[in-house]
Amino acid sequence: MSLSDAGVRATLPTTDLDEAVEQVSAALKTEGFGALFDLDIQHTLQTKIGHDPGPYRILGACNPPLAAKAIDADPSIGMFLPCNVVLRVQGDHTLVEMIKPSAMLQGLDDPSLADLQQDADARILRAIGSLQA
Amino acid sequence: MSLSDAGVRATLPTTDLDEAVEQVSAALKTEGFGALFDLDIQHTLQTKIGHDPGPYRILGACNPPLAAKAIDADPSIGMFLPCNVVLRVQGDHTLVEMIKPSAMLQGLDDPSLADLQQDADARILRAIGSLQA
Repeated sequence: MSLSDAGVRATLPTTDLDEAVEQVSAALKTEGFGALFDLDIQHTLQTKIGHDPGPYRILGACNPPLAAKAIDADPSIGMFLPCNVVLRVQGDHTLVEMIKPSAMLQGLDDPSLADLQQDADARILRAIGSLQA
Repeated sequence: MSLSDAGVRATLPTTDLDEAVEQVSAALKTEGFGALFDLDIQHTLQTKIGHDPGPYRILGACNPPLAAKAIDADPSIGMFLPCNVVLRVQGDHTLVEMIKPSAMLQGLDDPSLADLQQDADARILRAIGSLQA
């Protein structure tokens, strides 16, 4: 599997990342996800080491009931929470890539998390899929 | 591989998570990692859905030069950045678990990231290992 296959993708017809973040946040909200963080990676890398990767944001999307069940099932799951959404500008559009929990956890044999992974995957597919319309 | 094998672990002889976060942050700093976020998951879950998982924090640890190289090699890597550190209280101590990039990316065939993964793994092992002394 390549890295890009680990995620669900959509393209938005804008190069304004603030606008893109708003649209992505609204789509995720319909599936019960809120953003626990919104990292401006371009700003961080420019400030820390003078490197410019271009406009690049990472949102940390959390569905609280799913997160609570996952932590109850295996508290080590926090190493994989929340679910990242990358937003970056490519040409005249914004590429949105959201991690699929099933891809992130594929090497792990943790049956207690299987149903939660499926549920989270389905929600993420619907939310990001709705952006592509 | 079980979920806990995906990380490097240490235990700290305190139940004060603020103190534990300080110690972990200092150890990570020696390997070039700063925290891009510090999530109080207990507070989030209590506020959002009235669920108390116990004291539970997640730090997002980023080594800017390594992150910049990884993004240059494959911009989709942001779905896996930064590297999470979970801090949670167990009995009379704090358990610290930090994700190993090699475990997170093991299902992916991305040779351009192999050297960076090894470097990040080694730094994380040293930083978290120093806490166990």
